[in-house]
Amino acid sequence: MAVYTEVSDEELTAFLATYDLGRVLSFKGIAEGVENSNYLLQTERGGFILTLYEKRVALADLPFFLGLMEHLAARGFASPTPVKARDGQALRQLCGRPAAIVTFLSGLWPRRIQPFHCRELGAGLARMHLASADYALERPNDLSLEGWRKLVGACAARADTVQDGLARAIETEFAHLEKHWPSGLAAGVIHADLFPDNVFFLGETLSGVIDFYFACNDFYAYELAVCLNAWCFEGDGAFNATKARHLLSAYRQLRAFSAEELEAMPTLARGAALRFLLTRLYDWINHPPGAYVRPKDPIEYLRKLRFHQRVKGPAAYGLR
Amino acid sequence: MAVYTEVSDEELTAFLATYDLGRVLSFKGIAEGVENSNYLLQTERGGFILTLYEKRVALADLPFFLGLMEHLAARGFASPTPVKARDGQALRQLCGRPAAIVTFLSGLWPRRIQPFHCRELGAGLARMHLASADYALERPNDLSLEGWRKLVGACAARADTVQDGLARAIETEFAHLEKHWPSGLAAGVIHADLFPDNVFFLGETLSGVIDFYFACNDFYAYELAVCLNAWCFEGDGAFNATKARHLLSAYRQLRAFSAEELEAMPTLARGAALRFLLTRLYDWINHPPGAYVRPKDPIEYLRKLRFHQRVKGPAAYGLR
Repeated sequence: MAVYTEVSDEELTAFLATYDLGRVLSFKGIAEGVENSNYLLQTERGGFILTLYEKRVALADLPFFLGLMEHLAARGFASPTPVKARDGQALRQLCGRPAAIVTFLSGLWPRRIQPFHCRELGAGLARMHLASADYALERPNDLSLEGWRKLVGACAARADTVQDGLARAIETEFAHLEKHWPSGLAAGVIHADLFPDNVFFLGETLSGVIDFYFACNDFYAYELAVCLNAWCFEGDGAFNATKARHLLSAYRQLRAFSAEELEAMPTLARGAALRFLLTRLYDWINHPPGAYVRPKDPIEYLRKLRFHQRVKGPAAYGLR
Repeated sequence: MAVYTEVSDEELTAFLATYDLGRVLSFKGIAEGVENSNYLLQTERGGFILTLYEKRVALADLPFFLGLMEHLAARGFASPTPVKARDGQALRQLCGRPAAIVTFLSGLWPRRIQPFHCRELGAGLARMHLASADYALERPNDLSLEGWRKLVGACAARADTVQDGLARAIETEFAHLEKHWPSGLAAGVIHADLFPDNVFFLGETLSGVIDFYFACNDFYAYELAVCLNAWCFEGDGAFNATKARHLLSAYRQLRAFSAEELEAMPTLARGAALRFLLTRLYDWINHPPGAYVRPKDPIEYLRKLRFHQRVKGPAAYGLR
């Protein structure tokens, strides 16, 4: 639920005067996205999303994100395309914040995941990884081991107020991952936040991927691990191996796994679970009372972590 | 910021199957409106707003609201038009709630009010009052004297926790209004909640009015009093008589005031200020911690009330 910055008429008019988008017909805040302020903008030229980047997004990273979207769209991967103003720049300023306009993507994000969603997602992910392989810019994943270490420290004192024993469970897991985190796996640009609300479908077909503001360079298989957690657990906490098999087998038809990637999957899934456990826990502990955004439950990710800790090998994910 | 009810894919698909709207292209929660859940729905037939009516709206009132929108639209007044399903019904059920689809209105609501907005608003209001004059249904204003009496009682015990002396100030004002509230003024259907975010403009022209879910029968001049409060005060609390003159003089060019309406304006403006002071105060006192919606400041309306209490006559509003 996110509109943090109200844009006045004068500011909007002055901003849009620098584009060739025709007359504005509508401008509405969207109740989706958590990090930034998003507006649906309709003009004589069509539908667009206007995003104002709020404090969590580093200005220095925006050229990487916007360039990636442009790169993917140019290769036929359905992602929002940044719209350039008359001066040729897509990244601009509005209300004292960095801001950009991107094209509007049709489609609905799935509220209830079916196996076909996972199959489409797997294929879409592989196409995205292949399309981004020659993207020139790089951005390290600041939410991998080093980032987790900082979050473990920042949450340690208050984790047990959320659930008894949580601080210890996190420290133990982090120590394990530090020791066993893989190296040398196939890597490139990943989305790194591919939750269902970032993936659009028209009917049973994936129609687009949005919200590239966590994209970074990391193992391709880590992206799959994030998706296993976000797409393949049921509401009651049960892991759905059928969905996982659909996801992973559709992916590997387009980009084959190595034996090492396969072997590392349980560890990567534990890391992906810890990553969202930590960021959710941090937000839970630190969210101001009365804030717009209702923080997400960190314990959901502790339960997912527990599942992967018990996994004996990649076969648990429907892989052979 | 309002999406209280998440609509699943299956529920949306089943719901839309009862309409002739073609394939769904997009479905996004809108961060506007406070009482209900609003989604922007795009289909092959165009843009629509899907509203799920949450608990504050009485089911029994919905035929009045939807019928009014249809009545106004049929008379050429730019309001959303309810879309009927194949069974001829506009009021339906979705996710266990009453729900309706209305047409999408182009336009932007003004974030910073200029005198031309007030002029357009005045003329639009008069057109709306004239267009609704032959509307067959009636709905009493449950937020007039009787409703205020209940709110005064409900807020009395805790009003002073918001501002010292507030309970007393409210009781004194209510007693005054009970004694001096006018009777016999020209009356009919009014919108009763015409804040800027419910009025759309394209350029300097009013393009539509939305959100008729407080509409009721009351004095036409009371509608103007609500608008004086909502449109003619500056951010620093100062009353802008120029804006008021634009509002009222544009209105009276299309629907003339009687001497009684003119004379009653300061009292009506006090009542309109008390009405929003009371509902905001009630929400302020009763809003659950961590709720999505940030309650609006009741004290803003205490300051507006104080202004109208000091007014000597209708000349203060730019009228003669």
